[in-house]
Amino acid sequence: MTLIEDLKAIVGENAYRTDPDDLLPHVTEWRGVVHGQTPILLLPADTSEVVRIVRCCAAAGTAIVPQGGNTGMCAGAVPDESGTQVVLSLARMNAIRSVDRDNYSMIVEAGCILQNIQDAARKAGRHFPLSLGAEGSCQIGGNLSTNAGGINVIRYGTARSQLLGLEVVLADGTIVNSLRALRKDTAGYDLKQLFVGSEGTLGIITAAALKLYPDPGETRTMLVSLPSSGDAVKLLGLMRDSLGDKIEAFELVSDFVFSLVEKHVANTRLPFRQRSPWYVLTDVTPGSSTDALETTLQRAVDARVINDAIVAKNETESAAMWRLRHSITEGEKAEGKALKHDISVPLSAMQEFLLRGEALIESLAPGSQLVAFGHVGDGNLHYNVMLPHSFKDGEAVTAGIYTLATELGGSFSAEHGVGRLKSKYLPQYRTESEVALMKTLKKALDPANILNPGKVI
Amino acid sequence: MTLIEDLKAIVGENAYRTDPDDLLPHVTEWRGVVHGQTPILLLPADTSEVVRIVRCCAAAGTAIVPQGGNTGMCAGAVPDESGTQVVLSLARMNAIRSVDRDNYSMIVEAGCILQNIQDAARKAGRHFPLSLGAEGSCQIGGNLSTNAGGINVIRYGTARSQLLGLEVVLADGTIVNSLRALRKDTAGYDLKQLFVGSEGTLGIITAAALKLYPDPGETRTMLVSLPSSGDAVKLLGLMRDSLGDKIEAFELVSDFVFSLVEKHVANTRLPFRQRSPWYVLTDVTPGSSTDALETTLQRAVDARVINDAIVAKNETESAAMWRLRHSITEGEKAEGKALKHDISVPLSAMQEFLLRGEALIESLAPGSQLVAFGHVGDGNLHYNVMLPHSFKDGEAVTAGIYTLATELGGSFSAEHGVGRLKSKYLPQYRTESEVALMKTLKKALDPANILNPGKVI
Repeated sequence: MTLIEDLKAIVGENAYRTDPDDLLPHVTEWRGVVHGQTPILLLPADTSEVVRIVRCCAAAGTAIVPQGGNTGMCAGAVPDESGTQVVLSLARMNAIRSVDRDNYSMIVEAGCILQNIQDAARKAGRHFPLSLGAEGSCQIGGNLSTNAGGINVIRYGTARSQLLGLEVVLADGTIVNSLRALRKDTAGYDLKQLFVGSEGTLGIITAAALKLYPDPGETRTMLVSLPSSGDAVKLLGLMRDSLGDKIEAFELVSDFVFSLVEKHVANTRLPFRQRSPWYVLTDVTPGSSTDALETTLQRAVDARVINDAIVAKNETESAAMWRLRHSITEGEKAEGKALKHDISVPLSAMQEFLLRGEALIESLAPGSQLVAFGHVGDGNLHYNVMLPHSFKDGEAVTAGIYTLATELGGSFSAEHGVGRLKSKYLPQYRTESEVALMKTLKKALDPANILNPGKVI
Repeated sequence: MTLIEDLKAIVGENAYRTDPDDLLPHVTEWRGVVHGQTPILLLPADTSEVVRIVRCCAAAGTAIVPQGGNTGMCAGAVPDESGTQVVLSLARMNAIRSVDRDNYSMIVEAGCILQNIQDAARKAGRHFPLSLGAEGSCQIGGNLSTNAGGINVIRYGTARSQLLGLEVVLADGTIVNSLRALRKDTAGYDLKQLFVGSEGTLGIITAAALKLYPDPGETRTMLVSLPSSGDAVKLLGLMRDSLGDKIEAFELVSDFVFSLVEKHVANTRLPFRQRSPWYVLTDVTPGSSTDALETTLQRAVDARVINDAIVAKNETESAAMWRLRHSITEGEKAEGKALKHDISVPLSAMQEFLLRGEALIESLAPGSQLVAFGHVGDGNLHYNVMLPHSFKDGEAVTAGIYTLATELGGSFSAEHGVGRLKSKYLPQYRTESEVALMKTLKKALDPANILNPGKVI
């Protein structure tokens, strides 16, 4: 095992782990669905150590699994069972290198925890909008390499939209430094785009220049109850007509999902007296045009698009509403296993997806419970299914849902990526020429297939 | 010439040109700087004809130059002088395939003229924000393949940000159809990103799914006079502090530039009584918070960041202000030749760039006239130089400006791309590893180098 000794020497004492107990959280996907093996976890201190690790592994033909916070949903950051893949954690490379107020940008290392980036931006009077459930432990390198979404995509786009420049280590150890904090740069191919959403299979992100925004101002949180899921799209239309793009978040949640939260998570209660089948949780920044907001809600009630609406009166009420939303994963997990799906469709097809989806599940697996919630403003739903106990295999249900989403012009993976768990679906739900081009890219950038092999394609 | 006959047969009668007079506007870059040659201009009617043309040329090893409106600034859409390169115009593929109001998206063919897309969006009660001087004749395929910028980037990003899905024909004639109109889609590598800004060297864009926005509401246009160029960045900071991202455009123009407009373009006059060395033209959508706008302007006057401000009282006044801006190219051209530069730097370095830039030009070419204007809100300036008559060669000035921009973390091409005119600068101002990776991509996607050879890299 010269390689392992060489790798240890690169990072030095205390910057690697080989003890199985220490390795466990790094070889296990956080939901416990996938368990891998690794001879060593490496914690390089800087980009030059990453380069040396990659060169060393490349020479030995050994695979590298880059790992951030390991909070992904598709097991994209854990090694396989072979016990030969080396895990490269970016956790120690967590410096915020600089914040440029005037340029509305900052430069951070890949291991920076998302929340720390949000905080640093706020401290500088700026806003970094990427926000998702795992923000307290996920790392920006992982967010970028999975093109993370979250709750503010409707207003600010996905992680890709927050990126100005990137530093990446390629499969041969070359550093590609495109850490320019520019809004406009057409000097040649925009290389950074390659590494966003490719889940560490084309290069290892080591640092990034991020876009910051002005403080969006006071946010109003509202919880709205709806007669039917299709009304969510209608409500969004009404709100956009009057509020333009001042909608920061727009989340759909079914009554069943909120009931799981209330059942399993302490101190959570839906603030409505009367329950409705669906709810929308939304953040808006109306500025001084709060009248427009009131008028819109009234119009929505009159048109029977909504049953009721509660506007949070203060931050405590707003936080309580968002707590309901952020507790969904916990509530769902406590209730039992579910088939997970993270689909997107054009908003115009959302209602059809929901209607046909329910019918499909009822026909394929009668008695299932649908756990549907998510970023409906982006056309993205977490569309999970709790199968009846008699069902051992949900493959047909999953295939049915993916086929339906694809038929409606959608995607079988909206914001969770592909990783290891969904790689088998890629050739089924993307065209042959798309998959072929992805393979061409992989082969061009990582001919020996040492970067996160087995993930994505 | 079997190839030419084969190509004629593919597109059919009336869909090709071989007459030198007909070809002239298609082999000449619009400013007349570059003159090329071609045996034939092809005007395919649809994607399948594009495929057949590409296959035919690939078999013969003949190069193809894809062409949109031929309004680019770097001669990226004209053939070289060899007389062997075939020009493939997308002009006839100009259908708006669909507009999806609920999904805030539309699907268009590559040959759609930008203005027609803006109009179609408006007709549907939606907003397509990409806007630039050539919008009456440039085509969306060209806008995307050059990642066009324009005046609204500060608010909406470049052409890349407006893209949801793409249909592309590769160098071997394969169609890659990723025409999904989704906000979130992490199912594998985001292939469309490859073709944005690569100027037809990696594939030929044939259709696109575009993002639409809510109507931004009433826009206020203001013309502001400034004591110095550095005050523009300060003004932007003040405006963002109070107006957030409600700034739709923010353009800096020097007094000399406006004087060229007034001199050469009929019915243009700066509305200020007293001239200032610099001006900012800005569009804001304050909604009901017009108070914030007034307060900000007063604060800017008090801090001596601005000399004066005129807010357009109606659309006519607004149009007159924008006419001044849009006439710059005409005024500049009428005055005489200029070295063109299209640089970007981080906003925080803009003042330093302007100060050092002026000193640099004065030292390298004393007596030069600086023609500086552009999208300062994006850190992007058109920084042109009219050399004194004694100067025959401006190469040292150009090199000095590019070196300065690069030193300050900027780019030698902000929104004009590389094309043929700037390809020699790419290896000088991008790192070796960046250029190597660009070449890797080019080789992987177009090994025979038949797609727009000699452009970009």
